[in-house]
Amino acid sequence: MTNQPYALAIHGGAGTILKSTMTPEREAAYKAGLHAALKAGEDVLRAGGSAVDAVTASVCALEDEPLFNAGRGAVFTTAGRQEMDASIMDGRDRSTGAVAGVFGPKNPVLLARLVMETTPHVCMIGDHVLELGRKAGLEFPEADYFFTQARWDALQDTLAMQAKGEDDDDPARRHGTVGAVACDRQGNVAAATSTGGWTGKMPGRVGDTPMPGAGNFAENATCAVSGTGHGEVFIRYTAGAEIAARMRHRGESVIDAARHVVMQDLGQNDGSGGVIAVDAKGVLTLPFNSEGMYRGWVQEGTAPEVAIYDE
Amino acid sequence: MTNQPYALAIHGGAGTILKSTMTPEREAAYKAGLHAALKAGEDVLRAGGSAVDAVTASVCALEDEPLFNAGRGAVFTTAGRQEMDASIMDGRDRSTGAVAGVFGPKNPVLLARLVMETTPHVCMIGDHVLELGRKAGLEFPEADYFFTQARWDALQDTLAMQAKGEDDDDPARRHGTVGAVACDRQGNVAAATSTGGWTGKMPGRVGDTPMPGAGNFAENATCAVSGTGHGEVFIRYTAGAEIAARMRHRGESVIDAARHVVMQDLGQNDGSGGVIAVDAKGVLTLPFNSEGMYRGWVQEGTAPEVAIYDE
Repeated sequence: MTNQPYALAIHGGAGTILKSTMTPEREAAYKAGLHAALKAGEDVLRAGGSAVDAVTASVCALEDEPLFNAGRGAVFTTAGRQEMDASIMDGRDRSTGAVAGVFGPKNPVLLARLVMETTPHVCMIGDHVLELGRKAGLEFPEADYFFTQARWDALQDTLAMQAKGEDDDDPARRHGTVGAVACDRQGNVAAATSTGGWTGKMPGRVGDTPMPGAGNFAENATCAVSGTGHGEVFIRYTAGAEIAARMRHRGESVIDAARHVVMQDLGQNDGSGGVIAVDAKGVLTLPFNSEGMYRGWVQEGTAPEVAIYDE
Repeated sequence: MTNQPYALAIHGGAGTILKSTMTPEREAAYKAGLHAALKAGEDVLRAGGSAVDAVTASVCALEDEPLFNAGRGAVFTTAGRQEMDASIMDGRDRSTGAVAGVFGPKNPVLLARLVMETTPHVCMIGDHVLELGRKAGLEFPEADYFFTQARWDALQDTLAMQAKGEDDDDPARRHGTVGAVACDRQGNVAAATSTGGWTGKMPGRVGDTPMPGAGNFAENATCAVSGTGHGEVFIRYTAGAEIAARMRHRGESVIDAARHVVMQDLGQNDGSGGVIAVDAKGVLTLPFNSEGMYRGWVQEGTAPEVAIYDE
């Protein structure tokens, strides 16, 4: 049994905020949210817990924080609804679970984990999986728990632009996902990702988050990845699987592989955003091609760090 | 502009039937269905049409044939409903569209194509995309159009086994998907896939078909792929993307890459099934690790061929 230093990285979305519109108060609030999510995951790892449990804890914390576009504070579709996607993957055996288009569970990532652990399936949608969640005792808060005025106002702006025939290409409304990757002391990796999607997405849109190999991926032999950004491009370029494939077939490091996919495959093809990734030695990398990415990371024995811009 | 011989392959599911239970009459009916679907796609290619149009035509023909588990004749969930997944991908620019869990359109692949061509999204679920299909004039037959007694009886068998706590591991009820891959005279490739999923799948289960890079993939630089089999394993091993990755990064031929993924990655990990694949030179391959795969293929200037077992 290996007993190596653990490593953990998290993100709270990429390209979602311009430096020009940031205030010191907002920045402090985002950083506090990132620190809390890092701590939730690190507490698991420090106690000898698994990477799967660590990424679950970090993503739950990010879903609970309304500043981030997942769980509480998720964005709205054109129909004024919140539809959430989430997934989790265990690098030990590539087992994975995902849900798409759900509204109800406080923590969509826990519903994804339920799919992974208790069904023969990988991805589920619709009422039945919600019922599975209720029966399993997951928390289902009142609907207004998820509502935030800022996201509602953002939708009204988007709808007004759509009514005038203008494209809403403000990345602050297009992006936003949360995620975590971890490598535990046993050298096992895992990834979890959760999102509300785009502000003003069509009802029923499924993004890259619940597609293993696109926005979320984990395999001990290569790496764990969680992505955030223009999900449709992450799907078309199978971003997570391609980072792993470059490591597997070209022998690239996780740093070089993730950088290539983010800067070339995605960056050259309208795929703004970024990823966080970790390999089974605990090497972390957090590349992004957008103006900023809310992110944090910690390795055993070092102090947790958080950042927003390319600092 | 290249002007090379076209190539087309189709499948109607893998592992779905044991030689011991096949009759000459059934075999003839399946082969006639495969020939009709090959002809539909080849007619497009012979007239100088695109690979995207050819795979659309072939998959529509397979969806219309109740012997195959897609469109008319789709299998039933534990709740006695039919929920269909479909996708299409254009190798020229990796544009792709998919739908999951839909019931209504005569040809789910046409709804997937509508997502690709008319929305900013890749994958859609739920009522809104059905409404888009109706507005676009897609055909929505009466619900009983899709019903077949044989699939209903198969569900009753599965439910009876579930009630006794027995696993239904009969591949005839677990598998079944249709798909097509083509390379047109311009050297452009495309793939399309459509399915009813598993007999006795949980309501809301989404398989590999609507996940680009899992059960369906197309990119001119490598290949077009359509898969059929145990979809959950195709997702975990990102089957389509991995075939392309072996070509891109290791320089393998489409034949070697597809064989490796089907026999090793899938075959060694409970992933029974197969794929059809074509590269931009028109090289076709149709490997499977199950007892049989309904399949057909044609290259310009040769006679169409169909097969079921490892013949």
